[in-house]
Amino acid sequence: MQGAQVTAIAYETVQRDDGILPLLEPMSEVAGRLAAQVGAEYLDKSHNGRGVLMGGVPGVAPAEVVVVGAGIVGSNAVKVAVGTGAHVTVLDLNVERLRWLDDIHQGRVATLVSSPKILDDAAVGADLLIGAVLVPGRSAPKVIKRSTIAAMPKGSVFVDVAIDQGGCAETSRPTTLSDPIYVEEGVQHYCVANLPALVPRTSTLALTNATLPYLLEIANLGTEEAMRQDESLLRGLNTYRGDITYPAVAESQDQSWHEVILDS
Amino acid sequence: MQGAQVTAIAYETVQRDDGILPLLEPMSEVAGRLAAQVGAEYLDKSHNGRGVLMGGVPGVAPAEVVVVGAGIVGSNAVKVAVGTGAHVTVLDLNVERLRWLDDIHQGRVATLVSSPKILDDAAVGADLLIGAVLVPGRSAPKVIKRSTIAAMPKGSVFVDVAIDQGGCAETSRPTTLSDPIYVEEGVQHYCVANLPALVPRTSTLALTNATLPYLLEIANLGTEEAMRQDESLLRGLNTYRGDITYPAVAESQDQSWHEVILDS
Amino acid sequence: MQGAQVTAIAYETVQRDDGILPLLEPMSEVAGRLAAQVGAEYLDKSHNGRGVLMGGVPGVAPAEVVVVGAGIVGSNAVKVAVGTGAHVTVLDLNVERLRWLDDIHQGRVATLVSSPKILDDAAVGADLLIGAVLVPGRSAPKVIKRSTIAAMPKGSVFVDVAIDQGGCAETSRPTTLSDPIYVEEGVQHYCVANLPALVPRTSTLALTNATLPYLLEIANLGTEEAMRQDESLLRGLNTYRGDITYPAVAESQDQSWHEVILDS
Amino acid sequence: MQGAQVTAIAYETVQRDDGILPLLEPMSEVAGRLAAQVGAEYLDKSHNGRGVLMGGVPGVAPAEVVVVGAGIVGSNAVKVAVGTGAHVTVLDLNVERLRWLDDIHQGRVATLVSSPKILDDAAVGADLLIGAVLVPGRSAPKVIKRSTIAAMPKGSVFVDVAIDQGGCAETSRPTTLSDPIYVEEGVQHYCVANLPALVPRTSTLALTNATLPYLLEIANLGTEEAMRQDESLLRGLNTYRGDITYPAVAESQDQSWHEVILDS
Amino acid sequence: MQGAQVTAIAYETVQRDDGILPLLEPMSEVAGRLAAQVGAEYLDKSHNGRGVLMGGVPGVAPAEVVVVGAGIVGSNAVKVAVGTGAHVTVLDLNVERLRWLDDIHQGRVATLVSSPKILDDAAVGADLLIGAVLVPGRSAPKVIKRSTIAAMPKGSVFVDVAIDQGGCAETSRPTTLSDPIYVEEGVQHYCVANLPALVPRTSTLALTNATLPYLLEIANLGTEEAMRQDESLLRGLNTYRGDITYPAVAESQDQSWHEVILDS
Amino acid sequence: MQGAQVTAIAYETVQRDDGILPLLEPMSEVAGRLAAQVGAEYLDKSHNGRGVLMGGVPGVAPAEVVVVGAGIVGSNAVKVAVGTGAHVTVLDLNVERLRWLDDIHQGRVATLVSSPKILDDAAVGADLLIGAVLVPGRSAPKVIKRSTIAAMPKGSVFVDVAIDQGGCAETSRPTTLSDPIYVEEGVQHYCVANLPALVPRTSTLALTNATLPYLLEIANLGTEEAMRQDESLLRGLNTYRGDITYPAVAESQDQSWHEVILDS
Repeated sequence: MQGAQVTAIAYETVQRDDGILPLLEPMSEVAGRLAAQVGAEYLDKSHNGRGVLMGGVPGVAPAEVVVVGAGIVGSNAVKVAVGTGAHVTVLDLNVERLRWLDDIHQGRVATLVSSPKILDDAAVGADLLIGAVLVPGRSAPKVIKRSTIAAMPKGSVFVDVAIDQGGCAETSRPTTLSDPIYVEEGVQHYCVANLPALVPRTSTLALTNATLPYLLEIANLGTEEAMRQDESLLRGLNTYRGDITYPAVAESQDQSWHEVILDS
Repeated sequence: MQGAQVTAIAYETVQRDDGILPLLEPMSEVAGRLAAQVGAEYLDKSHNGRGVLMGGVPGVAPAEVVVVGAGIVGSNAVKVAVGTGAHVTVLDLNVERLRWLDDIHQGRVATLVSSPKILDDAAVGADLLIGAVLVPGRSAPKVIKRSTIAAMPKGSVFVDVAIDQGGCAETSRPTTLSDPIYVEEGVQHYCVANLPALVPRTSTLALTNATLPYLLEIANLGTEEAMRQDESLLRGLNTYRGDITYPAVAESQDQSWHEVILDS
Repeated sequence: MQGAQVTAIAYETVQRDDGILPLLEPMSEVAGRLAAQVGAEYLDKSHNGRGVLMGGVPGVAPAEVVVVGAGIVGSNAVKVAVGTGAHVTVLDLNVERLRWLDDIHQGRVATLVSSPKILDDAAVGADLLIGAVLVPGRSAPKVIKRSTIAAMPKGSVFVDVAIDQGGCAETSRPTTLSDPIYVEEGVQHYCVANLPALVPRTSTLALTNATLPYLLEIANLGTEEAMRQDESLLRGLNTYRGDITYPAVAESQDQSWHEVILDS
Repeated sequence: MQGAQVTAIAYETVQRDDGILPLLEPMSEVAGRLAAQVGAEYLDKSHNGRGVLMGGVPGVAPAEVVVVGAGIVGSNAVKVAVGTGAHVTVLDLNVERLRWLDDIHQGRVATLVSSPKILDDAAVGADLLIGAVLVPGRSAPKVIKRSTIAAMPKGSVFVDVAIDQGGCAETSRPTTLSDPIYVEEGVQHYCVANLPALVPRTSTLALTNATLPYLLEIANLGTEEAMRQDESLLRGLNTYRGDITYPAVAESQDQSWHEVILDS
Repeated sequence: MQGAQVTAIAYETVQRDDGILPLLEPMSEVAGRLAAQVGAEYLDKSHNGRGVLMGGVPGVAPAEVVVVGAGIVGSNAVKVAVGTGAHVTVLDLNVERLRWLDDIHQGRVATLVSSPKILDDAAVGADLLIGAVLVPGRSAPKVIKRSTIAAMPKGSVFVDVAIDQGGCAETSRPTTLSDPIYVEEGVQHYCVANLPALVPRTSTLALTNATLPYLLEIANLGTEEAMRQDESLLRGLNTYRGDITYPAVAESQDQSWHEVILDS
Repeated sequence: MQGAQVTAIAYETVQRDDGILPLLEPMSEVAGRLAAQVGAEYLDKSHNGRGVLMGGVPGVAPAEVVVVGAGIVGSNAVKVAVGTGAHVTVLDLNVERLRWLDDIHQGRVATLVSSPKILDDAAVGADLLIGAVLVPGRSAPKVIKRSTIAAMPKGSVFVDVAIDQGGCAETSRPTTLSDPIYVEEGVQHYCVANLPALVPRTSTLALTNATLPYLLEIANLGTEEAMRQDESLLRGLNTYRGDITYPAVAESQDQSWHEVILDS
């Protein structure tokens, strides 16, 4: 790469002043919504699930859905799960996010500040458990214990959207779209690392929406000037004229990295 | 009364072709809405309740409210309980009523076709249990067992709106507005027979709304002609020119009754 | 059967005075809700669909869902499709049903009185088309033409809930849970005859809710007396003491049938 | 205290960078929701109120509820009042807060930028007036005049949630849970200083949710290091090793205070 | 006509068993929705109105809209008025209709059982008053008095949708689309007899939806047989083979009428 | 002006730290809501429009409304258009705004990240197109091409709320309240520069709400001190003691400007 003098800005490292990763956000929205949809699918009998319908029907109780994490992934999973008529509980450490969900769903969703005991109490009764605990740039914490999974009803479903970052359950291991599921402790685990690939048409449009403004900046200004004017791009710089400039990348490649000094 | 040649039409016996008692309906609406409000009140600590808030707050689970019966009383109780943010489950034998509630609340309420086991399972976890099982013209069935009440959390509340007709729990006995509550099996029982008296301004208007059309008929046509033209009134006739004409009244007074032959 | 002197009341023929088949209704509710869920599933890439997400995400258009028929099946399909965030259009000949949907969804759903041209115009742009045209006791009319299906986008999905009654599209043929899908004119056809079998836990409870009142009547009164008191049961009688009493059954078996004369 | 070398961080003075008092917020949520509930209670006849039901019933007008202040207390009071079916008007000087309420309630609530005349016009017709005007760290302004209270209907209710800070009406004086009410100018005044004590189960959980993260910081890092890393805690420091460090506390105790110099 | 032996079925007299006039209903829906829209228009200054915006904006009170009549016209007017953010009150004598509106609007609309005093109290504060009191086949009652109109704010608007049947206010007289408005007692009166003509595209489709099924019956069966099989059509017969068969038509033409004896 | 030593702060240049123009915001809210209302009006036949009703009626499709821009103007236009029952699509470059709209409308509105092609595809099918693309302090970009307008249905309506800043369509030119409309490419153009003047009562109150706090500051502190304490006012200073202090004003008057040095 050094020989090629490559200057590379990586999607997943472009970062705004407020810490948000704007090119990952739309993928989190897609993944969150899909998590509820895929969970519903694996609850049915043809997928060896418990055979319960998300919203039940009048006279029959709806499914219990528990979403761990109220970030972008989690709040999008909540939106779709609520839409199907399920009874939804969402947990997070951040009470501000829960207030937001309470406001826009007007009491339709139960919100709980998470703790190991509260998470355990909520999860053991779940037909569908969605893991959406993501810490930007770090491994997901293993907040869901094996014992919790083991206490869930047989045939229930766990979807781990944090699997890209190692998963947020002790029982999680990555699966693929072609072989998406495994059973552990009697619970179906759906741990596909790249969920948005299920809906490429929607995902591509969403990604393009987020990417296009940055592409236009680079096309109009040239790479250097674009990075000068927009620090989001500069933060996303991984290699500059062949040198690695992103410490985490250097570290993972066991190489050294250089401070960026943009050419004028 | 016979000497006085009284012709009397009783409020609670006026009945439409479709079986509805139009002068009782608005009182059922008031009672249902009050049941949820009064239940919330007795859940607080100053009333010796469990000390839980109906809707919780973001991060803290809402109260569990179970309404037994989805008729006019029950569906009005549901409406207010949902409005406070509680998690509400409603039971009835009539799945049509549950469909209706599912439609207008759009999945916000859990609906269950009732059976002794299902009722028991739902009720034992309730912070607030509302009994709204009313069979027109008959004693309310004792669908809520003493053992169910005993299994509810200490300090939880049971409001029996069916107390006018004997109550729908084995533990119910009538109370009064001045001494409304007693504790049985650790559960506060609110069994005031005349709930709408709590809000006389609203109740009087509601009752007048329902009564006025009949009064106008009688005023405009005279009693006989009004009954001829509107069978609802005729069905409500209790005494005619001094004779008892309503079998149930006669029976309860241990007297005989006469077929009505209206004067021309 | 005649030798065995069997008296049989068939689920699917029990019928109320208002023409409703009370033991089929809950299955229609389950099937309608599942139709939207299954349709969403087959839109994804792992099922060879178009790869679109029902609700899209902010900035990306939602899927177009068209539901043909606004009866119990159709209105339940609408409910779940709306919940996922899709743009939903529903067609029916009966404007009363459409008014009802407009009232409870408050303008959230586009409603169209159906005609061949209007149906065709709506369907050709659909990502997901749901056939819910059921005429009780008759073959479903083939209201969806092959040319309409052929004009839909490649990879779109058609779910035919009317397949039990022969299907409502010219391209429909029954499939099974183990082999649920086939492609015709570039559109995935999901025509599983017994959709509720996907969620047996929910379906069994729903069916039991509807059946139990009739079972109790029979258990308490005996079969004859139950049929005498409840014409719904009598209408559902297929064989009585070994003789076929239901014309359509006799006809399909090429046998003769007898008028019912209940023993006293 | 100086002898004891106490280092004390007070709940009500922990403050985030954005000025929010994170340990008071959940209590404001509880108090706001309770204000609407308690107000409904005191409107009933057994509490000597006007005898009106919050939501009325179909055909009878709902109660008029006016909430002064659209902060956390006020917006939570609005949420519950709206849920009961009342007609709710909310006033604030901050139009941004009103925009927010208009957005999440979608026009269901009337919002008014407050001025003495507008407040007066709105309040005199109220069945229930809720005072939720709180200025962090200061006495509440007396925005509700005695003449306004006097113009309200006899038997109406005023709940002053700002009573902790002296109350926001000229007629307010603190009451207690055991003797919560007094009548002034014909209006029932409910001015209990510690409303959340009514629902200790909910309040304790809400408070713990907010407190736990700070406790964990202190437990994991030690008090000094925790304050170094999290200025919210440092701002909440009242005494350090026996010296008063919080000016307002020193002032109210008529003592001197010291700048904090944390030990290294 | 007699010479021509004309057989004529009139749109506005086709009537179902339940009394509904199916070919007028869609026009009532259109007219009701337009009434709210046109009323909003004439409230603006360019139309000499009061200059108020239906929904106000956050911080400014919304317009007061009062709808008299909760039938098809009135409930459609309510729907649009609510949608604009106005504060809406609806009055009717029929509490069942008000219950229905309360259910689907979930307390968003104030409902009042009408009486002269209640109507007067509600109307005098209205920015927009919509008259939707229609009695099928009769002159509309003059429920809105001149004195009520005179007490409304100057520049407020009254839309009389009942003008086809003579209008429901003492101050109403028919106007035309080309000269739609006049001022009486300081209030703008919009009394266009044929409101649906404003939106011919929508109206024609709506009318066709309702008409087509009857046309198909006539086309498929012939006029006589269609009337035999569908009494709705028979009720709508105005002339048969040149003789007038509809009493009201005969009366208004001062002619005699004949009993229908359909040819076989 | 210099002779008069005028110190002038201009409404439209008062600006908060976050860039918001607080005295223009309420006018944007009014204009946005009016845009939808006025658009509906000009769709009717008496205004030479297409003759479609915003919400259609049950069985007839609603109007297609496309709003370009999701700022304050656009999101208020969306709110009213949704309320009338129309099918609404909103476009913006800023996906955060679209997320917000998706959250509060819960999927009721289609949101699209704008691009020339996407805008064109959406607009050509619109019955009503609302231009709400405003860039503070600059000419509005001409994002809507003449060819797009030309492709819209004949009789459709375009409301350009950005006309104050030159308009956001190639076909826009300012009109007045007394002559508000012109037809270009078969589409009615409503380009009134001062929309809020249509509802002066609402607009004046809204403007006063926003202005009063600044007036009070100036009245209480004097102009200089008020500007010292509140930079929003200082930013809005146009002339100080006769000298122009606002570069854009100086430039447009072809004069020089001076740095502000406030007197002490």
